[in-house]
Amino acid sequence: MKNTETLLPLAQAARQASSLAASLSTTIKNAVLQQIAQELHARREWLKAENKRDLQAAQTQGLSAAMLDRLTVADDGINAMIEALKQVSLLNDPVGEVVRMWKRPNNLLVGKVRIPLGVIGIIYESRPNVTVDAASLCFKSGNAVILKGGKEALHSNTALVSLMHEVLRKNSLPETVLQLVPPVERETLYAMLALDEYIDLIIPRGGEELIRSVVAHSKIPVIKHYKGVCHIFVDESADQDMAEAVILNAKVQRPGVCNALETLLIHGGCASAFLPRIVSSLRGKNVEIRACGQCRTIVHDLKEASEEDWQSEYLDLILSVKIVPDLDAAIAHIGRYGSMHTDAIITRDYSNAQHFLGRVNSSVVLVNASTRFNDGNQLGLGSEIGISTTKLHAFGPMGLEELTTLKYVVYGSGQVRE
Amino acid sequence: MKNTETLLPLAQAARQASSLAASLSTTIKNAVLQQIAQELHARREWLKAENKRDLQAAQTQGLSAAMLDRLTVADDGINAMIEALKQVSLLNDPVGEVVRMWKRPNNLLVGKVRIPLGVIGIIYESRPNVTVDAASLCFKSGNAVILKGGKEALHSNTALVSLMHEVLRKNSLPETVLQLVPPVERETLYAMLALDEYIDLIIPRGGEELIRSVVAHSKIPVIKHYKGVCHIFVDESADQDMAEAVILNAKVQRPGVCNALETLLIHGGCASAFLPRIVSSLRGKNVEIRACGQCRTIVHDLKEASEEDWQSEYLDLILSVKIVPDLDAAIAHIGRYGSMHTDAIITRDYSNAQHFLGRVNSSVVLVNASTRFNDGNQLGLGSEIGISTTKLHAFGPMGLEELTTLKYVVYGSGQVRE
Repeated sequence: MKNTETLLPLAQAARQASSLAASLSTTIKNAVLQQIAQELHARREWLKAENKRDLQAAQTQGLSAAMLDRLTVADDGINAMIEALKQVSLLNDPVGEVVRMWKRPNNLLVGKVRIPLGVIGIIYESRPNVTVDAASLCFKSGNAVILKGGKEALHSNTALVSLMHEVLRKNSLPETVLQLVPPVERETLYAMLALDEYIDLIIPRGGEELIRSVVAHSKIPVIKHYKGVCHIFVDESADQDMAEAVILNAKVQRPGVCNALETLLIHGGCASAFLPRIVSSLRGKNVEIRACGQCRTIVHDLKEASEEDWQSEYLDLILSVKIVPDLDAAIAHIGRYGSMHTDAIITRDYSNAQHFLGRVNSSVVLVNASTRFNDGNQLGLGSEIGISTTKLHAFGPMGLEELTTLKYVVYGSGQVRE
Repeated sequence: MKNTETLLPLAQAARQASSLAASLSTTIKNAVLQQIAQELHARREWLKAENKRDLQAAQTQGLSAAMLDRLTVADDGINAMIEALKQVSLLNDPVGEVVRMWKRPNNLLVGKVRIPLGVIGIIYESRPNVTVDAASLCFKSGNAVILKGGKEALHSNTALVSLMHEVLRKNSLPETVLQLVPPVERETLYAMLALDEYIDLIIPRGGEELIRSVVAHSKIPVIKHYKGVCHIFVDESADQDMAEAVILNAKVQRPGVCNALETLLIHGGCASAFLPRIVSSLRGKNVEIRACGQCRTIVHDLKEASEEDWQSEYLDLILSVKIVPDLDAAIAHIGRYGSMHTDAIITRDYSNAQHFLGRVNSSVVLVNASTRFNDGNQLGLGSEIGISTTKLHAFGPMGLEELTTLKYVVYGSGQVRE
């Protein structure tokens, strides 16, 4: 469909449904989430069959194996969605929480109360599980949601949404709380991104190119991260066994994700001891190393890093390595090349740990722990809808609370202003 | 200056200064604010002389009396700036506050720590006091600030900024912490609004037209409110003396501001008693009333309101009045015509009060109090840099906290992810 106003009724319907979504009780929200989980289990064969239609089309079109893998909905994927739904149903409902309340000298009682954002648009690629994960988080936080998945996952997403609609209907709730955008031309989608009167927030999830095009076209606020160029700095005082374990975990455990390690910084004072050791371990895990000139005077056969390497999110078994003269040089390197995503120091020195935590303003800053902990589940938010490296509204993993805002309520007894 | 890249070095300098601004101690920040207050007092004759240059130019150009009034820097205006500076110096420094910290099952200690946003751009008109007020709030919250005042206030703003720069220099701090944008063409300013790599937030303060043009051109997040169409709903159970006092205060005390009352909604059950009374009081204060048809069956000589009236922010001694059948109709009217700014109910009924507070999702919702309390000082934030009706990041009056964000810090002891 090419008419750029095609999605206007959908956005308007979402805005209308958002009042109802905001007023649902925790009990009914949890019941809906649990029923969706049950339906996913009961209808898994049908879901897999619908998914197969997408997979066959994708194969015909010659999509990469990685794309096919992300598109696949198999039993373990369905089980993971069911688990996620149950988990979200167990999380505290953020809506209505009074986070603070205070009394003014004139006896006005002033409070800040958590309310849903309203209408949230999620724009994503391939993975059909995002359809259920994102919908459940938006629903639990009292928001209406508009889902725009990839064309390649159309049958899978349609099946998942129709299943969720059925549960909504059974509970006498309007389907418009949760809508899937039909396949439209790019221009039509861009036109939707101008509907700031009806949509409160856009969260794009996918590659940097998708995200940049959403940001470029959106009048609606966008929360996103472009990439994760994550650093670990090995301080002179570091426990080298710990440094090795953390670096291997951060680089190798799952290299294709945004919180994986991309650049290793080593203090000059421990480089001659630590560099050969970590190079050998990394090579044992098939990691390609691209190093600074000084590294290459210690381990001669290292490939030289280019300026571009310091800015690269490899998402692969590649690591750039640099020796820095001191802590402040490491912090300066992170400030210059980092992406404000996740950065860590390995140290035994108290004051260096505190200095690093204070001066590195990334969304998650760690001492003596793997960068892989920048994750809503791992940090204890329960679940996450994405990670933000934008400082406005949310910074770091976004859980249910980040899908809400705070309004002021004032209890008076006839006060007027002098 | 027309080269659209003119402001790039200024934005880059602000970004560079922002690290230093973020790391300043509370002690030095407060000392700087107090010294600026002292200098304002010591150099008030010079400031007034510089302001006179603006006023003379404005008179020559035939600016309105209201504009001239807003442009004037007289002794009471200087005293107010001095007071505001002292007040900001007394506020808690938000930077570094640990708002929460918790332990994970694997013994990771995870905390959320308040950090400055980075670089904040303020775009405003006429009033030179905004130069000092906004600069002081951004400085206290550890941000670098870029100030873009109106051309008509150039000499006044330049004088105020040069005075602040002098204090910064005396304290060995870089002037780039706080910069004034020179007079530039509109296109050059719009080009600055694309520099999202260097500027974290834009706050426009002024008329709706200015704000809309900033929003339309900015790639940087903007926090703003377009207008305040504020409502008071007089419930059937309302104490009519209280209702009258609150309505008069909200409409008359300062009609030209965004939290003044613009539309009065009256429950049908008390309209025949209350409407004649409030009409008489309002007319006694020279308020023009534009009313719905039902109102005019009770008070016959009322002017009829048009559809446009329900959407109007008069900023003047005009009030639209409507009779509604019940509480939910009042809430629906506010949902349709309101601006999510400030809305109040006058009631003696407990459950209606709670229902109104729960269902009206404006930035400030009040029971039995004047809409004029939507103000940072009045609600106890100490000071405000503006009011947001955008739900993202800040909703309602924005104080020092709203000029910061929260990063995650993680204290580990070698943890890796399974």
